[in-house]
Amino acid sequence: MKKTLLFLLLSISAFAQIDKVEPPFWYAGMHNPELQIMFYGKNIAQYEASVSNNVVIKNVVKTENPNYIFVTIDTKNVPASDLVFSFKNKNKVAFTKKYALKERRANSAQRQSFDSSDMMYLIMPDRFANGNPNNDSDKSTTEKANRSLPGGRHGGDIEGITKNLDYLEELGVTALWSTPLCEDNDKGYSYHGYGQSDLYRIDPRYGTNEEYLKLSAEMKKRDMKLIKDYVTNHWGAEHWMFKDLPSYDWFHQFPGYAQSNYRMTTQFDTNASAIDAKYCMDGWFVPSMPDLNQSNPLVLNYITQNAIWWIEYADLDGFRVDTYSYNDKVGIAKWTKAITDEYPYFNIVGEVWMHDQAQMSYWQKDSPISAIQSYNSHCPSVMDFTLHDAFGNVFNEDKEGWNDGMIKVYDNFTNDFLYANTNNLLIFAENHDTGRFNQNYKNDIQKYTMAMALLATVRGIPQLYYGSEIGMAGDKGKGDADIRQDFPGGWAGDKNNAFTKSGRTEKQNKFFDVTAKLFQWRKNKDVVHTGKMTHYIPEQNVYVYFRHNDKETVMVVMNNSAEAKTIKTNRFQENIKAFTSGKDVLSGKSVDLKNEISLDGKSVLVLELK
Amino acid sequence: MKKTLLFLLLSISAFAQIDKVEPPFWYAGMHNPELQIMFYGKNIAQYEASVSNNVVIKNVVKTENPNYIFVTIDTKNVPASDLVFSFKNKNKVAFTKKYALKERRANSAQRQSFDSSDMMYLIMPDRFANGNPNNDSDKSTTEKANRSLPGGRHGGDIEGITKNLDYLEELGVTALWSTPLCEDNDKGYSYHGYGQSDLYRIDPRYGTNEEYLKLSAEMKKRDMKLIKDYVTNHWGAEHWMFKDLPSYDWFHQFPGYAQSNYRMTTQFDTNASAIDAKYCMDGWFVPSMPDLNQSNPLVLNYITQNAIWWIEYADLDGFRVDTYSYNDKVGIAKWTKAITDEYPYFNIVGEVWMHDQAQMSYWQKDSPISAIQSYNSHCPSVMDFTLHDAFGNVFNEDKEGWNDGMIKVYDNFTNDFLYANTNNLLIFAENHDTGRFNQNYKNDIQKYTMAMALLATVRGIPQLYYGSEIGMAGDKGKGDADIRQDFPGGWAGDKNNAFTKSGRTEKQNKFFDVTAKLFQWRKNKDVVHTGKMTHYIPEQNVYVYFRHNDKETVMVVMNNSAEAKTIKTNRFQENIKAFTSGKDVLSGKSVDLKNEISLDGKSVLVLELK
Repeated sequence: MKKTLLFLLLSISAFAQIDKVEPPFWYAGMHNPELQIMFYGKNIAQYEASVSNNVVIKNVVKTENPNYIFVTIDTKNVPASDLVFSFKNKNKVAFTKKYALKERRANSAQRQSFDSSDMMYLIMPDRFANGNPNNDSDKSTTEKANRSLPGGRHGGDIEGITKNLDYLEELGVTALWSTPLCEDNDKGYSYHGYGQSDLYRIDPRYGTNEEYLKLSAEMKKRDMKLIKDYVTNHWGAEHWMFKDLPSYDWFHQFPGYAQSNYRMTTQFDTNASAIDAKYCMDGWFVPSMPDLNQSNPLVLNYITQNAIWWIEYADLDGFRVDTYSYNDKVGIAKWTKAITDEYPYFNIVGEVWMHDQAQMSYWQKDSPISAIQSYNSHCPSVMDFTLHDAFGNVFNEDKEGWNDGMIKVYDNFTNDFLYANTNNLLIFAENHDTGRFNQNYKNDIQKYTMAMALLATVRGIPQLYYGSEIGMAGDKGKGDADIRQDFPGGWAGDKNNAFTKSGRTEKQNKFFDVTAKLFQWRKNKDVVHTGKMTHYIPEQNVYVYFRHNDKETVMVVMNNSAEAKTIKTNRFQENIKAFTSGKDVLSGKSVDLKNEISLDGKSVLVLELK
Repeated sequence: MKKTLLFLLLSISAFAQIDKVEPPFWYAGMHNPELQIMFYGKNIAQYEASVSNNVVIKNVVKTENPNYIFVTIDTKNVPASDLVFSFKNKNKVAFTKKYALKERRANSAQRQSFDSSDMMYLIMPDRFANGNPNNDSDKSTTEKANRSLPGGRHGGDIEGITKNLDYLEELGVTALWSTPLCEDNDKGYSYHGYGQSDLYRIDPRYGTNEEYLKLSAEMKKRDMKLIKDYVTNHWGAEHWMFKDLPSYDWFHQFPGYAQSNYRMTTQFDTNASAIDAKYCMDGWFVPSMPDLNQSNPLVLNYITQNAIWWIEYADLDGFRVDTYSYNDKVGIAKWTKAITDEYPYFNIVGEVWMHDQAQMSYWQKDSPISAIQSYNSHCPSVMDFTLHDAFGNVFNEDKEGWNDGMIKVYDNFTNDFLYANTNNLLIFAENHDTGRFNQNYKNDIQKYTMAMALLATVRGIPQLYYGSEIGMAGDKGKGDADIRQDFPGGWAGDKNNAFTKSGRTEKQNKFFDVTAKLFQWRKNKDVVHTGKMTHYIPEQNVYVYFRHNDKETVMVVMNNSAEAKTIKTNRFQENIKAFTSGKDVLSGKSVDLKNEISLDGKSVLVLELK
C-alpha cells in the first residue's frame, strides 16, 4: 500500500512542471519589499520551494488545489538580479525556475499622473482604429473578428491608437483612457474587455505587450498620459484560474448563481440588512464575470501586484478603476492604498456610479463623508456622475423653473463642500456606458458648444468620449453597440476619414474645431485647472460663473434660453472687480463689461478678463 | 440759544413715559444671568437708568432712535423679587418702573421635551375649532372674522383646541404643534400668524395669554406636550417696532425691496457668490415680512429672551422654528444654543425645506456634515423633507422600477448615516405648506393606511396634519387656503362634527380608526421609538423592514403593488431569528413566518413578532 502511494507520487512529480509564474518578473527596490509569487503547475504543491541569493522566504501558502504554490519573498535590499527558485521533493531538487528582479526606471516611484490640467479622452480600442489588420483574429483566442456584428470584434487595436496620436494631440487630448486591453477570451461579446481572462497579457487582437509599451513610450514623447482601465471587482469566466480554482473562495461563490443587486448604498447604509450588502458586493455583475474575493489575502495580493506590475512595466500614468463601489470596500481600500503607497502621486479615478454627491464623495480619498464611518478608500479621484446627470437634458430646458434649466448645473456645484478634492473629480457629459450626448441633443452644435465650454471651464478633470468631437451619435436604447460605433477613418476603406481635416465633413469639422479650440486653450490655463470657482444663481436660464486666482480671471456666461439675453454686469462686481473687458475664447471678440453683456439664445461666452 | 435748548429738552422729558417694557418680567435663577430689558417710550434715551436691590447694570445701549433704551442687568444670585428701575435726568428721578423677577417652576431647566415617543399633531388654530365666538374679531386688531373668505380669519382659537383635547387624545396625539399664536396684525391674510406684530401677546382672535397658559396646563394633565411655532427669521410689517425702528439695522434693509432668492444652498456652497448668499439670508421672505438682522446683538438678545420667556411663562415642551435655514446661520446657532443652554433637554425642530439629506443634516445639532465647515447649528431636530418627497407619489407607483415604487422610501433611509440623530427627525407626509395627502391619493384608504403605517413605524417623530385623520383633502394648486380648510365640527352649526365617533361619517371613521389604532399602539412601543431599523431592498414593490431591540421585534411588510404578493421569509432570517409568528397590529390576526407571507395588493402588515 505504502509503496504504491510512493510510486504514484513519484510518477506525478515526474510530470510536474511550471506552467505559469505570476508576476512573471518583478522590480528591485519597491516600497513594499514583500513579493508574493504564484507558481502554477500540475501538483506543484508537493514540492518545497527555496530561493537563491540568500533571499528570505517569508511564507509559503498552499491552497486546496495542489496545482498552486504561493511563495512570498522579502526583496528588501535585494539588488536587481536573476533569482533561482528550486523545487525539492524529499530534499532533491526536482526542477528550478529563474526569476528576474529588474531595475526600475529613474524616479519611477515619484511619477506624476493625470490631474485637472489634463483633458482625458476615452477610447474603446476595438472601435477606434484598426492599425494592424493582421491581428484582428488570433488562434489563441476564441472570438474572431466580425465587423458586421454590432457586438462583435471589429479589429481596432493598439497600433490604431499609436498611429493616430497626432489626431488626439490636435484635439487637445493630454491623457488617454482606453477600456481594458488585457486578454478577454469570452466566446462572444468580448470586445469591451471587462471580462479579463489573463491579467498579464495584452489581448492579441489588440496587439502585444510590447506594442502597449510602445504606445506608452510614444505618448511620453508627446507629454501625453496613458491611463489603464483596471478591473478589481471581477474577472471573466474564461480566466484560466477560474477553470482551475486555487481555492473555492478565490471568487465569491453562492449556492447557485447570485447576481449583484447593484444597490451600492448598502455599502454605507446603517439600516441595510447584511444579506443585501452581501449580495451587492459579492454577487456577480453578470454570469460571465465571477466576482473576486478580495478578503482572501492571496487574491488581494495578486491584483495589487498585477496593478503595480503594469505601472512599472508599461510606465503608466494612472488608473481608471471599473465598478469601484461594487468591490469589498475594505479590500479595495487596501488595494488602492498599496498602489498609492508605492506611487504617492499616482492618480486613480474610481467609477462610482451614484446620483448623490455625499454618496459619491464617500469613495474619494480623505472624504469627510466616509470619515463618518471611519472609512477611507484612498482613491484620489471619483467620477462626477451627478454632473453627468445634469448634462442629460439641461440644454433642452429652454425655460427656467425652480428645478429646470441651468439651475441643474448650478445645483451640482452647491454640494462641492462634501468632497475632499473637487479638482480631482472626473467630469464628463458621457462615456461608453451612457447615452451619447449628440444623440440626446440631435447633433445641435450650439448645445454641444455649451457642453464643451462647461467641461472645459468648471472644476475637475474633463473627459471626452471618442467620436463626439466629430458629432458621433448613437442610441443607448438600441444597446451598447450603438454608442460604441467605429470611428470613421479607422478602417481601411472607410469613405469618411475623420482623423484629418480634409477627410472630415464640414459638420464634423465644426464639432472638431470648437472642441479643439476650447481644449487647446485650456491646456495652459492654470486658472481653470486650479483656480477658485465662484458662481451665481442662474437668472432667466443664464448661468454665470468665474474661475479666478491671483493672476487671472475667466468669466463664463451661458445662455440656455432660446432667446437672446442681456445681463447687467453690476451683479458680478465681486469677481469683475477692476476688469473692464473680456476676450471670448471662442469668437476672439472683445466684450465690454461696463454695463451689460448681450448674448444670443443657446450660446456661451468664455471670457478672459482684461 | 443754550437756554432754549435746555427748555426744549425739559419740555420733551415732561412727556416721557414708558409704553413698553420687554420682556415684561423675567425669572430668577436662569442659567444665563444677563438680562437685556428694553424700555420704550418717547425720548426715553435721554434718561439715565438705575436699578434697585444692588443689582448690577452691565451695560446700557442707546440706539439712533431716542425712544429706546436697552438695559442689561446681571441677575446672578438675585432672588425672585420686584426690582425698581429709576430713570433720571440731571440726577433727578423723572419716573420709575417696577420689574418683577419671578420664581421658576420646579425643575424648569430640566424640563423634558418631545421626542420619538411622541406623535405630533399640527393645527392651524384659525381653522380647527372656534371655541369662543366672542373673540373672532377684536378692536385692537385690524382684520375681522370672515369665514366666507378662504384666506380670511375664520374664528378658530385656543379655546377650540382646549375643548377638543379628548379628541386628540383619542387619536393618539401626544404633542401639539400649532402655527403661531402671537399677534399678527396684518391687514389681511393674517390667519397663518407668521407675520407677528407683537411677540409677547397672544393674538386676541385666538384668545389671551392666560388662555394659552390654560391650554398648556390642561395638556400637562394629559401628559401631552405643547410646541410653539417660533419665527426667528422675520416679523410682520405691522410689528410696532418696524414702525418705529430702534435702529436702521434692526432689519436687513436694502436700497429698495429685496426678496430672498430662497436658494438655501448658498448657506454652505463654497462656490457661492457673496451677493447670492446675502440675498438668500437677508432678503425678505415676502414684502410683508421684514427680515430680522440677527447679527445685531440687540436683536438676537431680543428674540432669544422672548423665546425663553415663552418657555418659562407658558411651560412649553418644544419649539418648531420656521424657515430655520433662511436665518443668518451664525445668529440662529447662537439663538438655538442659548435656548438649549438654558434647557438641555428642550427639543427644537427646524424647518429645513431642502431635498438632499446632506443638506438637511447640515442643520441638525452636531451634524457630521456641517462639521466639515466647523459649523454647528445646535438645533436638535430637523424635518425629513426627502421622506416627505417620497410620500408625494410613491403609493401611486404600482410598478417597481430602478427608481420607482417603494425603492423611493427605501432610498431615503440609505443616507441615514449622514445625520447626527435620525430618531430626532420629524417625519411627515404633509404639513400646512404642502399638498394634502388625501388630495394626492384621492382619499384612498388603503394608500392612507400604508402611509400611516410607515409614519408609525420608521425612525423619527411622526407628525400628522390636522384633518387628514378624517380624510380631509385640499388642493395646494388652488392656493394655501384649500389645504387649510376648517375642521368639520369646529364651528357651531357645522352639520358634520368629526370630533366624535357618532358625528363622523362612516368614511371619516374609517380614516380615524386606522390612524388611532396605529398611534395608540405606537405610544408604548419603545422598539419603534428607539429600536434599530433594518430594511431590505424592495422586491416586486414589496418593502420589508424591521424595528428591533433586545426585547422586541416589529416587522413591517408593505405591498405597494396592486396585485397580491407572497414573499419567502428566509431572506429575512437575520431579523426573524427564532420568531415563528407575528401579530398584525391592524387586523389583530396572527401571521405564520415559517415559509412565506401573503398579502393583498396595496396593503401593509405591522407584525409584532412572537
